[in-house]
Amino acid sequence: MDKAQRIANKQKQISISEFFEKNKHFLGFDTHQRAIITAVKEAVDNSLDACEEGRILPEIHVFIKRLEGGNLELITQDNGPGIPRDSIANVFGKFLLGSRFHAIRQTRGQQGIGITGVVMYSQLTTGSLTTVMSKIEAESTAVRVNLALDTKNNRALKSNEERIPLEDWFRESGIESLHGLRIRTVMAAKYQRGRQSVHQYLRMTSIVNPHATIRLHVVGKDGEVVDQGEWVRTTSKLPRPVVEIKPHPHGMQFGTLQRMLKSTKERNVKSFLRKEFEKVSPLVAKKILEHATLDEKRRPSNLDVESIQRLLAAFMEVKIQAPPVDCLSPIEDLLIKKGLEKAIDSRYAATVTRNPSVSQGNPFQVEVGLVFGGDLPSDGTVELLRFANRVPLMYQQGGCLLTKAIESIDWRRYGLEQTGGKGVPKGPAAILVHLASTNVQFTSEAKEAVSDNDEVFDELRRALFEVGRGLQSHRKRVGQREKSKEKFDLINKILPEIAAKSSLMLGKPQPDLSPIITKIMNAVFCEEEVIWDPSEKVTRCKIKIYNYTARARAYTIIAKWPESELVKIGENARGGRKEARGLWAWRLDAIDPGDMTQIDFTVTGLSKGDWKEAEVFYRGNGEVIGCEKIDESLLEEARKQERLQEVVEEFEDEAGSTSNDQVLVGSPHSHGESNDEWQTGNKLF
Amino acid sequence: MDKAQRIANKQKQISISEFFEKNKHFLGFDTHQRAIITAVKEAVDNSLDACEEGRILPEIHVFIKRLEGGNLELITQDNGPGIPRDSIANVFGKFLLGSRFHAIRQTRGQQGIGITGVVMYSQLTTGSLTTVMSKIEAESTAVRVNLALDTKNNRALKSNEERIPLEDWFRESGIESLHGLRIRTVMAAKYQRGRQSVHQYLRMTSIVNPHATIRLHVVGKDGEVVDQGEWVRTTSKLPRPVVEIKPHPHGMQFGTLQRMLKSTKERNVKSFLRKEFEKVSPLVAKKILEHATLDEKRRPSNLDVESIQRLLAAFMEVKIQAPPVDCLSPIEDLLIKKGLEKAIDSRYAATVTRNPSVSQGNPFQVEVGLVFGGDLPSDGTVELLRFANRVPLMYQQGGCLLTKAIESIDWRRYGLEQTGGKGVPKGPAAILVHLASTNVQFTSEAKEAVSDNDEVFDELRRALFEVGRGLQSHRKRVGQREKSKEKFDLINKILPEIAAKSSLMLGKPQPDLSPIITKIMNAVFCEEEVIWDPSEKVTRCKIKIYNYTARARAYTIIAKWPESELVKIGENARGGRKEARGLWAWRLDAIDPGDMTQIDFTVTGLSKGDWKEAEVFYRGNGEVIGCEKIDESLLEEARKQERLQEVVEEFEDEAGSTSNDQVLVGSPHSHGESNDEWQTGNKLF
Repeated sequence: MDKAQRIANKQKQISISEFFEKNKHFLGFDTHQRAIITAVKEAVDNSLDACEEGRILPEIHVFIKRLEGGNLELITQDNGPGIPRDSIANVFGKFLLGSRFHAIRQTRGQQGIGITGVVMYSQLTTGSLTTVMSKIEAESTAVRVNLALDTKNNRALKSNEERIPLEDWFRESGIESLHGLRIRTVMAAKYQRGRQSVHQYLRMTSIVNPHATIRLHVVGKDGEVVDQGEWVRTTSKLPRPVVEIKPHPHGMQFGTLQRMLKSTKERNVKSFLRKEFEKVSPLVAKKILEHATLDEKRRPSNLDVESIQRLLAAFMEVKIQAPPVDCLSPIEDLLIKKGLEKAIDSRYAATVTRNPSVSQGNPFQVEVGLVFGGDLPSDGTVELLRFANRVPLMYQQGGCLLTKAIESIDWRRYGLEQTGGKGVPKGPAAILVHLASTNVQFTSEAKEAVSDNDEVFDELRRALFEVGRGLQSHRKRVGQREKSKEKFDLINKILPEIAAKSSLMLGKPQPDLSPIITKIMNAVFCEEEVIWDPSEKVTRCKIKIYNYTARARAYTIIAKWPESELVKIGENARGGRKEARGLWAWRLDAIDPGDMTQIDFTVTGLSKGDWKEAEVFYRGNGEVIGCEKIDESLLEEARKQERLQEVVEEFEDEAGSTSNDQVLVGSPHSHGESNDEWQTGNKLF
Repeated sequence: MDKAQRIANKQKQISISEFFEKNKHFLGFDTHQRAIITAVKEAVDNSLDACEEGRILPEIHVFIKRLEGGNLELITQDNGPGIPRDSIANVFGKFLLGSRFHAIRQTRGQQGIGITGVVMYSQLTTGSLTTVMSKIEAESTAVRVNLALDTKNNRALKSNEERIPLEDWFRESGIESLHGLRIRTVMAAKYQRGRQSVHQYLRMTSIVNPHATIRLHVVGKDGEVVDQGEWVRTTSKLPRPVVEIKPHPHGMQFGTLQRMLKSTKERNVKSFLRKEFEKVSPLVAKKILEHATLDEKRRPSNLDVESIQRLLAAFMEVKIQAPPVDCLSPIEDLLIKKGLEKAIDSRYAATVTRNPSVSQGNPFQVEVGLVFGGDLPSDGTVELLRFANRVPLMYQQGGCLLTKAIESIDWRRYGLEQTGGKGVPKGPAAILVHLASTNVQFTSEAKEAVSDNDEVFDELRRALFEVGRGLQSHRKRVGQREKSKEKFDLINKILPEIAAKSSLMLGKPQPDLSPIITKIMNAVFCEEEVIWDPSEKVTRCKIKIYNYTARARAYTIIAKWPESELVKIGENARGGRKEARGLWAWRLDAIDPGDMTQIDFTVTGLSKGDWKEAEVFYRGNGEVIGCEKIDESLLEEARKQERLQEVVEEFEDEAGSTSNDQVLVGSPHSHGESNDEWQTGNKLF
């Protein structure tokens, strides 16, 4: 027989289950230590997704027990909506069956792989069946069933299915919920503590899911407690429900568009564009077709390759609004700060939530938090906390786009140590990065690292620049103040002593020292203080300006504050005016030499610890120690962005829509370019 | 409707093609720069595999052209066996169809994903069809066909299939072969030069596939040459054919064993063990069953979970020979050295090919090469060249097990700089690591990084320790010699001059300086030189021992040489005897003070540059500069290993087998432990 024929004869179709069984390491089951983390992760991610979809505040319990012989038993219990009897087998025993694969909205799970992988790994390594107990609200009893995988045919095998009375459900589940899911599985695995552990995974999960209560209980062979943890929810506000959207024209792939054109029910290409895409109004559709030189009456299924290419090009040439944001669920800065401070004690915290952007038709949004100082160790590299769609990423740090973005920034400019201006910086800081997207592109099914994407990379860098700049001015402010304070203390202590001694010796009266002190200091100082007022439940901000120069001084003082829909300025005796979103300005009367002026205002809608330090800017001549001169050109840019935002909102209101978008001009990249140095995000200036 | 039911109703089965289309980044198509590298890699890997399977010396041409509009056209041509007409569509248009998935032997491709991914990516990004032209030897004409993917059904769509006359095949293919394969595809991609490029990929491929000739030709939009490369084969010896083997009992997974037991045709568990596993003789089968307390008459399909667990445990308790090595195809040290020297100009090169080992039932083998000095830059980190089954790995360096093994070694002990004794070392060196395995566990389908595995990690560390020790003694030797040479030169130059001047001034005869020089030097020197003799086609090794002490000295000199089946000692006037594999010893008569003795021998079977430096040891009193005292306990250990090897070979011969194994005692780990400090690999001592 011909060589070629001989080789060809050996070819066989492989089932997806066989594929994943042989490649279990793709799913995160490469080592025994990692296997248990992966199993917990898949179960907890599913619970969180189901609770969010069912609008339930999640209560999740994780029990792990070491069995005789070394295998681990894992039980997870949630109060989610549960799974109907007829769907259980498919959810747990069939790969690539999912409800979210074709949907464009942000969820943790998407592929229909995760939990089936756990059932598979359990069966492969120990021969055990996985037991699932499910209670849905509509039924008066729970259902319990044992599951196995028919690997050759990618099918679930059910056994011992039975109905469980309500009282037994309550007793076994240990929760007081009329709905929920309990999974029990046994696997070859090893429980470990440390940086990569179940404990750490759940702790990180609680940071970005402050609405969830999670409990962990780990026991050894003889029932002794090996590890435990409890993370109680810090907010009862569920994340905003995410809405499924249609694809956005930007970055559409040729093949995807071709398939949409083939399968649409619309009879002409204009209605196809209007009905099957987000943000294509009749006017936009008309412009797209003009750019593509296509007749709007053309039948979608009749377009040839060349016409489709013109259509794709037109998508990028016509101005199209950004996709709606309600398909995404960012954590938002106050919760990031709270979470970070729960995890890490620090002096300074800053966060940035960027406006949503779009890559390959998928909306995404980037958030960054940075904490500095406090108890953080100053000799090692900065701790990186990576998250994608509110799921912590614990492996493959080096190969992850989120890490690469951090490594690409020259952190030395912002006061952190960094060899050669590249790589993970060193110093007493931690950086949190969250990517929210309707389609997070991971490097593998184990979802441990984000793969390369230029648009996401650029957005990450912009957010990182911004927290970097915040850190830099914080450090500058702190440094200036410490230095001046030292000088001030010295002068105020030593001069009067010398004066007192000299006067005594000479028998003369003590001279007035303030003009002399002013002369020596020759500076204007600014001090700010932000404190939580527990009796009034407001945050109080005090700004003091000391004039230690020989001339009277007049300034406009501008404070940055965490403005949002819910966060407002309360008391503000001095009045002043809004300069831009999150920036308030007060024009002060001249301060005489040796005098001080104070600004007091309160901010409502915040909780304790939400806001701990105000950034203060000034407009006027000379230098003010402790605050920075405002950059008018950047301020102008910020106002422009804000006006743009308002125009969009008006336009949206007219159009009857309630979402909160921004206009994209030209390509999906260009809107961000001007934004690089001065971001007008929702919350932080 | 109940929440749970509403969620469940949305579930849909996803086809594997839809899965990979949405997750094209899993396959290495994340950025435009990487897409072209991935496409070339998939085509070239397939060509090399097919040529090896067909026992053909590969000739591979890669043409890339930038088209109007920015897309790239890729054409690859090989002289492999070709693909029969009826198989073309499935090979290129159907995911998870492969000939090698269930086979236990070393190949580049295994999953039936790679080239279908290229067709998919081309279609998705440009709507283009992929054209395949195939010629098999058994037919007088070639066949040409256009291919597309029916993504929803994971099916190939053929069009324009036609027969191509032989003369057109010759003309179009540009090669003079009666068999081969030509692929043309168009994709959204970007050609780049640099460290991660098609050029670099092919260069690295040629290093570990010295039997292949590869040509690259890249042109721009107007036909101008953008890049090109030619790597001509340096050997006409094809890699040893790899044989498909049965699974080995070591590290067998529960689920795999369970399935084998269920589907076997053997009627009792003893014959099941003998027939379905490698290296299970009747005696071994009997011992396994005794350990598992199982009756040998038991029907395989009747074993319960508990019995299977006992059987698995017995697999690890009974001594079982290592798997046969003929399923693996290591590069072997001489070719690694040649390859490294082709790529990198350096002074010192050392390689280690470890004996095969087994992990989770899969045989694997580790090879390491290290080059040092020469033109290598001394200020940066060491260059790492990673390979798996003769395929270069170019991405995800940080997340790869091969890198982690290198990073885990304290290279400071071996003379390289390394911060904190961890991480990639610095200095003028390059390290090559090759993992050959019947089942390389990558972190994803893109096959760019090896995932965590404790057994492979340990083997890698052993190999790295060994090249590290070689580097250390090389550096020590060079250092000692340089220092002594300096002293020697100084004394030999200055003393005679002083003597001459003094004699002249005093009008006295010049004294004999040699006793004085000897007294000052007071050392024994060893110098070795290895040179290629082009006229005789042998490698000549000279070892000189100088006695610059006041007493007569006697030594046994032992030289390490690259012994193998084909490499022998030729001329050797002094005789001597073999001490162990790759170690030859000469007992020298006493060397008088001021005298020198020389050993000359030739080694046959090597090519120019294969061997450039001999390691020399001595047995005797005092110190010999330029060579190391032999460690008798290590030598004894080496002899023991060798005897074991011989015993196994005899045993094999008796059993009628011809393979070249070693006995594994107890667990698959233990055999290597004693080996840690002194390796008896095939070629290097």
